[in-house]
Amino acid sequence: MNVPQGFQLAGVTAGVKRSGRPDLGVIYSPAPLAWAYSATQNAAAAPCVARDRSLAAAGGPVRAVIVNSGNANCANGAQGVSDDVAFAAAAANALGLAGPEEVVSASTGVIGHKMPLQALVAAMPRLAAERSADADGFSKAILTTDLAPKVATASMASGARVLGVAKGSGMIHPNMATMFAFVMTDAQVDQETLRPMWQRVVERTFNQLTVDGDTSTNDMAVALSSNLVPTDADEVELVLGNVATELAKQIARDGEGATKLITVRVTGARTDVEARHAARTVAGSSLVKTAVHGADPNWGRILAAAGRSDVAMDMARAVVIAQGTELYRGQPLEYDARAVSNALRTADVLLEVDLGVGTAEGTAWGCDLTEGYVRINADYTT
Amino acid sequence: MNVPQGFQLAGVTAGVKRSGRPDLGVIYSPAPLAWAYSATQNAAAAPCVARDRSLAAAGGPVRAVIVNSGNANCANGAQGVSDDVAFAAAAANALGLAGPEEVVSASTGVIGHKMPLQALVAAMPRLAAERSADADGFSKAILTTDLAPKVATASMASGARVLGVAKGSGMIHPNMATMFAFVMTDAQVDQETLRPMWQRVVERTFNQLTVDGDTSTNDMAVALSSNLVPTDADEVELVLGNVATELAKQIARDGEGATKLITVRVTGARTDVEARHAARTVAGSSLVKTAVHGADPNWGRILAAAGRSDVAMDMARAVVIAQGTELYRGQPLEYDARAVSNALRTADVLLEVDLGVGTAEGTAWGCDLTEGYVRINADYTT
Repeated sequence: MNVPQGFQLAGVTAGVKRSGRPDLGVIYSPAPLAWAYSATQNAAAAPCVARDRSLAAAGGPVRAVIVNSGNANCANGAQGVSDDVAFAAAAANALGLAGPEEVVSASTGVIGHKMPLQALVAAMPRLAAERSADADGFSKAILTTDLAPKVATASMASGARVLGVAKGSGMIHPNMATMFAFVMTDAQVDQETLRPMWQRVVERTFNQLTVDGDTSTNDMAVALSSNLVPTDADEVELVLGNVATELAKQIARDGEGATKLITVRVTGARTDVEARHAARTVAGSSLVKTAVHGADPNWGRILAAAGRSDVAMDMARAVVIAQGTELYRGQPLEYDARAVSNALRTADVLLEVDLGVGTAEGTAWGCDLTEGYVRINADYTT
Repeated sequence: MNVPQGFQLAGVTAGVKRSGRPDLGVIYSPAPLAWAYSATQNAAAAPCVARDRSLAAAGGPVRAVIVNSGNANCANGAQGVSDDVAFAAAAANALGLAGPEEVVSASTGVIGHKMPLQALVAAMPRLAAERSADADGFSKAILTTDLAPKVATASMASGARVLGVAKGSGMIHPNMATMFAFVMTDAQVDQETLRPMWQRVVERTFNQLTVDGDTSTNDMAVALSSNLVPTDADEVELVLGNVATELAKQIARDGEGATKLITVRVTGARTDVEARHAARTVAGSSLVKTAVHGADPNWGRILAAAGRSDVAMDMARAVVIAQGTELYRGQPLEYDARAVSNALRTADVLLEVDLGVGTAEGTAWGCDLTEGYVRINADYTT
């Protein structure tokens, strides 16, 4: 796997997950990394989110990211807060770093259960010893309910590389299956440039992803740069965006019970923010999601969803297109319903909506809503 | 049925619905009615919504409400706009009124199909002739996908009465099954008092209702007063609120595929608005809805939903209670999971969340998310 220069990754089994699958991973750099952090605004956020956010605000570089899966260390009261610091401190110790202030921590898994520190700390030496240029172990160690690792890579004209590793699915009881995205690059980009850049990328990629509308308590997207290959800033942003987009789509495809990726492209909006908001609302609408599942070209539901997103929209000029066929243009259109329905019987669905009030655009990704989703999430045994 | 003084209702079959069920209804008053109007903010709103809103803004009284079911007259372009005026004008004519400016219009049903004006106009004389103090016909004529009429009545100490009639279910293709609520009273309350009063009532009742998160293009809640019985304004507001609450709960219980009514009560919020918003977010969370369906006391999902509602919340002081059993109080609590799960195997579920940052309160209503919902809404045949 194409790990950018300056990064070493590893993933081991600490024995936290009963399945015996890998559950402790690390991203390490021998030199300071420029980094940018974006995480859930959920008020019930886990301690790692709050600590990482403070760390980012402090402005210094970091040297590592330590990740455990199988326990979200969320809603554990004061104990959870100190356990998160101890987790990062143990990683720093094992990696020969100064302290937890050089380590970004990330936990995902069961909530309300005490962090299994002993097992994690015991596995740290093994983790440190396994550091390499292979991202495979790390990509597996961060998973909880995902069906498969999510990885995306890209190269730039400068020769700089990008590696993105993500996880994310729905929230199966008792887990708070979280969205993580760790995007590494060796392109040269200082922290002051990287931070607003990453914010822009996250806003139009991970923040445009909706699987079931529920934002987890541990969601985070982290960008890291080892700053080795001179590259044009615009190209860095473009390629980071491509990798983030690819990861967002992989996460959407892997949504619980999902059988189809839904891409919603909004045009003709008043502002980019409105376009993105409308796209996300359409992609997250239960009625649109079920219609897509049933291969129903229900433009009415699409319009209603766009309409309730609270953005400017002109019904007399709006356009709705499903899989390339226009269904509505200021008024209902005649179309071959059977043909469009057949076109919707596929794993990749594109819905396009023009709001008719401007030129701004935005895209969102989601998945269909199926009986499988309900079965997975309603399944409970005491 | 307890129709307040000064109101006459009727419902007939105009033949718009293929089922032959009643599809044209009227509320009529021999004297001017004080009224208040609240409707969807959806940008794709049907012409009747826009026209009624303008009428309300004009400030005058009305004499009737004309309702048709089976056709929402939505997304029909310019034709739809003029058809709505013609619909109201035809009703005015049949009822001996001055013109459409005295008539509130409401349509619900299929979208994108031309309004069947001819059939509706032809049925108007029969509708006018059937006016009576019986609300049964009207309550049936406004239904689309509902399983049963939704009616609630109440009396005040003054002897004034309230009758509320509603409809609302999910949005079954190709309908945009809409929420309608028509609440009539003979309590004396002038329009200047009624309007802000109704806004307050709607904000804490119909606006706190979430079946599947999708706001229809035709949703409206209308209050009408024949102004006959002197009553204390506070009592009017209280009782209107009780009737609206009862109707909102009936609508939630009748949600597509629903097996349980979910009431979410939020306390300890910073403001009433935040409390209501948090309650609505919890009640509308797919993960909470599926958990309730599976009788899973998943407090984590409840906290996560409250947390993402963007209101002030203190995890160290928050409390989560399901069917009267505390599950979380600043940290996870021990509880009899089997007993709580059993308590959730009922058609009435109460979830309580204290946000720990204030004293404001708010309530929302919703229903569980089931495979039935998906089947109903994904079902499509060309």
